[in-house]
Amino acid sequence: MHHARFYTLTASCPDQVGIIARVTGFIAEHKGWILESSFHADDLDGRYFMRIEVKADSLPFQLAEFRSRFQPLADELQMDWRINDSAVKKRVVVLVSQQEHCLYDLLARWQSKELDIEIACVISNHDTFRGFVEWHGIPFHHVPVPADHKAAAYAKVQHLFADAQGDTMVLARYMQILSPDLCAAYPGRILNIHHSFLPSFVGAKPYHQAYTRGVKLIGATCHYVTEALDQGPIIEQDVIRIDHSDSVEDMVRYGKDIEKTVLARGLRYHLEDRVLVHGNKTVVFR
Amino acid sequence: MHHARFYTLTASCPDQVGIIARVTGFIAEHKGWILESSFHADDLDGRYFMRIEVKADSLPFQLAEFRSRFQPLADELQMDWRINDSAVKKRVVVLVSQQEHCLYDLLARWQSKELDIEIACVISNHDTFRGFVEWHGIPFHHVPVPADHKAAAYAKVQHLFADAQGDTMVLARYMQILSPDLCAAYPGRILNIHHSFLPSFVGAKPYHQAYTRGVKLIGATCHYVTEALDQGPIIEQDVIRIDHSDSVEDMVRYGKDIEKTVLARGLRYHLEDRVLVHGNKTVVFR
Amino acid sequence: MHHARFYTLTASCPDQVGIIARVTGFIAEHKGWILESSFHADDLDGRYFMRIEVKADSLPFQLAEFRSRFQPLADELQMDWRINDSAVKKRVVVLVSQQEHCLYDLLARWQSKELDIEIACVISNHDTFRGFVEWHGIPFHHVPVPADHKAAAYAKVQHLFADAQGDTMVLARYMQILSPDLCAAYPGRILNIHHSFLPSFVGAKPYHQAYTRGVKLIGATCHYVTEALDQGPIIEQDVIRIDHSDSVEDMVRYGKDIEKTVLARGLRYHLEDRVLVHGNKTVVFR
Amino acid sequence: MHHARFYTLTASCPDQVGIIARVTGFIAEHKGWILESSFHADDLDGRYFMRIEVKADSLPFQLAEFRSRFQPLADELQMDWRINDSAVKKRVVVLVSQQEHCLYDLLARWQSKELDIEIACVISNHDTFRGFVEWHGIPFHHVPVPADHKAAAYAKVQHLFADAQGDTMVLARYMQILSPDLCAAYPGRILNIHHSFLPSFVGAKPYHQAYTRGVKLIGATCHYVTEALDQGPIIEQDVIRIDHSDSVEDMVRYGKDIEKTVLARGLRYHLEDRVLVHGNKTVVFR
Repeated sequence: MHHARFYTLTASCPDQVGIIARVTGFIAEHKGWILESSFHADDLDGRYFMRIEVKADSLPFQLAEFRSRFQPLADELQMDWRINDSAVKKRVVVLVSQQEHCLYDLLARWQSKELDIEIACVISNHDTFRGFVEWHGIPFHHVPVPADHKAAAYAKVQHLFADAQGDTMVLARYMQILSPDLCAAYPGRILNIHHSFLPSFVGAKPYHQAYTRGVKLIGATCHYVTEALDQGPIIEQDVIRIDHSDSVEDMVRYGKDIEKTVLARGLRYHLEDRVLVHGNKTVVFR
Repeated sequence: MHHARFYTLTASCPDQVGIIARVTGFIAEHKGWILESSFHADDLDGRYFMRIEVKADSLPFQLAEFRSRFQPLADELQMDWRINDSAVKKRVVVLVSQQEHCLYDLLARWQSKELDIEIACVISNHDTFRGFVEWHGIPFHHVPVPADHKAAAYAKVQHLFADAQGDTMVLARYMQILSPDLCAAYPGRILNIHHSFLPSFVGAKPYHQAYTRGVKLIGATCHYVTEALDQGPIIEQDVIRIDHSDSVEDMVRYGKDIEKTVLARGLRYHLEDRVLVHGNKTVVFR
Repeated sequence: MHHARFYTLTASCPDQVGIIARVTGFIAEHKGWILESSFHADDLDGRYFMRIEVKADSLPFQLAEFRSRFQPLADELQMDWRINDSAVKKRVVVLVSQQEHCLYDLLARWQSKELDIEIACVISNHDTFRGFVEWHGIPFHHVPVPADHKAAAYAKVQHLFADAQGDTMVLARYMQILSPDLCAAYPGRILNIHHSFLPSFVGAKPYHQAYTRGVKLIGATCHYVTEALDQGPIIEQDVIRIDHSDSVEDMVRYGKDIEKTVLARGLRYHLEDRVLVHGNKTVVFR
Repeated sequence: MHHARFYTLTASCPDQVGIIARVTGFIAEHKGWILESSFHADDLDGRYFMRIEVKADSLPFQLAEFRSRFQPLADELQMDWRINDSAVKKRVVVLVSQQEHCLYDLLARWQSKELDIEIACVISNHDTFRGFVEWHGIPFHHVPVPADHKAAAYAKVQHLFADAQGDTMVLARYMQILSPDLCAAYPGRILNIHHSFLPSFVGAKPYHQAYTRGVKLIGATCHYVTEALDQGPIIEQDVIRIDHSDSVEDMVRYGKDIEKTVLARGLRYHLEDRVLVHGNKTVVFR
């Protein structure tokens, strides 16, 4: 976490000799001061990943010029790349249902600027949290999702997200399965928190499944949403110990604590451009 | 966690043959249905501890009669004991300063009835959270603690606590050191969350101390407040991993996540009568 | 962990009023000194579980007489029960293949008397560890398991186990799937360590499966062996954090550390009669 | 963990623009293939740290020539640096007393080549493990440390270490406090495992101290040995949960499991040149 404004360059490309030298050489040539840098070579498929933070005012030009000057090198290295400015706050749209723990947790982090973002709006299939959200000065949209009008509801959600110029959609225990269209519209931009240690206990009522199987730890998983339910790339996971004396209700309660923590961590990694999707997996430069 | 109303009997006494038999015999004699029971013998000093939950409507009498009927046995066993009714909500007074994480976390748990308590009021040395607290329908008192009028301030706090008929006082990152008088007035009833893994890093700025020492994990400790700063009986602790790349500011951020979790766990144990103080230590029947 | 000789009574029965009172009343009547006791009511199916340690020399009779005197009460309560004597060491037979970590770990614990057992013998489908095992004064049997003579091999294993008067069989990364006959012969007496956080990644090469799915934690599970592969009652589990930079080989290495720890914990719980099987789950009185 | 032979360059220097570019530029110029690289800027004191693994056969020269060619650049950047060859096994000398857990654990890791080192010899103040060590083909030296002849004993240890051409000395629960001379002779080369979560419970009988204070987690710390007891730079730490029912003896037993794990992790980091000492702290590039 740095105080000075910085640019974050993230990229992946086929591995070869000299990638770091060329990319950091380009930055050094322009007197760019590197605050933090991470590199990873995937040995199996020969792909290379990187993330570099450069102090904004150490460079003699702005982001637009960085982009045009860097492009030829990126082309040569066959890079997928992007660069973001820490001064431009990401716009997050939060979807909730009737459980409060992730919502309170996110708003506390936003309120203290620990998460230095704009919460563009909160969307819910219930009106439960309108007052709480609006008290924080954040727009709240009640979009019911009736069983026979789901398509229209998700179209509404998509419209609201676009309208709010959202960068990232967060399903903070939304409890609804998004339509394939919506999933496909924003690859790598919709985060979900699933209340199990995936791939165990996919789908509905994972704590009941965990109770039935008699596991000794329960977990939570933050992942990108894809069309395949609970199958998207995993960003972060954690677990908590339970024992034979814990009922499903106890598990639900314990689970909330890891759900909100895992979601907050995964979201932070995502918003700080620490997550690079690689097939159905992620590289997470913590 | 049980749905039916129940009584919670907690007790300690000198160890001897037959304690469980006599106590549970008394309950069985009155057809009392035991929902949960825990026993612990401290071998070193020969003291015995117990906690028993009895279904309220399985007994043919109310709590007052339980108390008078049980007293002779308790006397005989030289017991320190108490019994509480799950239908009587505990009244908690929360003290905060300017950090939001523990406050949001406690209110979320209260809002969802995960913590089935009354928050009698919130007291703060700053006015920062008035709106947030009052929005929840909870009284908020701003009691400044100026360096030269601390005694008066703590007298005010004590008065408000008494006035609110508080059972438990929670220092949710209150950042002020209570007066010895106040500490002494409520032994085993004031909980603090200290932002280190005690006994490491007592006192001020524990994250700075941790940074300087170069530890690889940081922690938080929920303990009862006594006159000796950060020396009271420990109820709950936890840690989180950090590394060389984490600044003090990063530690503060990570630390918040364990502070609020450890406080919530410790408070729950306390409110459910799971904590028995034993000298400067605790027995915690989770 | 107690120094004095003690008896461990474990039992389960239909729940009703007065179970603890009657069982501990029986013990108190004979001046039995209870060192440790644990009770658990399963609310869903109304079954009650208990484990009680009684100091041996506080009772006026030996185990045989305890058994006969206790039987009428056990009958009345419709108990499944057993009682064991801490002075009688359990006889454990360890099955290994070519990985050393669990074997070294178990022998270190046995050598220091942390596990106060007899290791009756070690059986392996390879001759790799003969010297190491025999150096410790423990008999070693090489029983190859050729693909076309598995039945004979498992018959041999069963014969050796019976011959060694084994109480418990431990598959310490044995890497072979026992025959259904062998599994059925010793219900609740064969422990396996599976190298995944079950129910994720059942069967072969779980670390490869974990790598492919991109999980952020890997685990290990100690469970009783049943005829259904990796489906038996879970005794203990744990996990360890990995990240994108870890290869399958790294996972195998990290995994060893939790495999041996989880196996040792699970085995200890089993040997100390802390595990009560309940359907396909376990009650573990730690 | 890589299979191909590689060189590991570790360095630190004053931070400035262009360090990565120049170092990786040097490597790229010679077609060096970077397998793994980590960088860290310490913002507080402006020092820069790095660790780079280069595939040995991608370079057109051997290590000696690398050293002489790289020196001018290192001089210019005012680097403290070293480079090691994965094909040259480090020589480790293990010091033990009468506890077996760390010794068994290290030998299991050595036996399986998980730790790809030479164990040059084992030195002990007791003769307890001679047979076990020698069975593994490793020289064993019994060097008693009588209270009145400690200096001579440590001189003997130092002589044996030198004689064995030891790179690293590991105090695997050695239970003796090395002489200041010996500590000073090998800065950053002697690792100790302390059985507490430092800085809590320095010195003797930390589990007794932990028991008395009533902590809810106990820990272990792997650190470099310096003249100040238990004050050296921390490499790795971990903790394990305990509760009121655990005696000191139980803590000792639980503690062994984290002691051996923390020591093994710390030692691995050290042997793989992942640890850079920075004042009294460490940078650990995991």
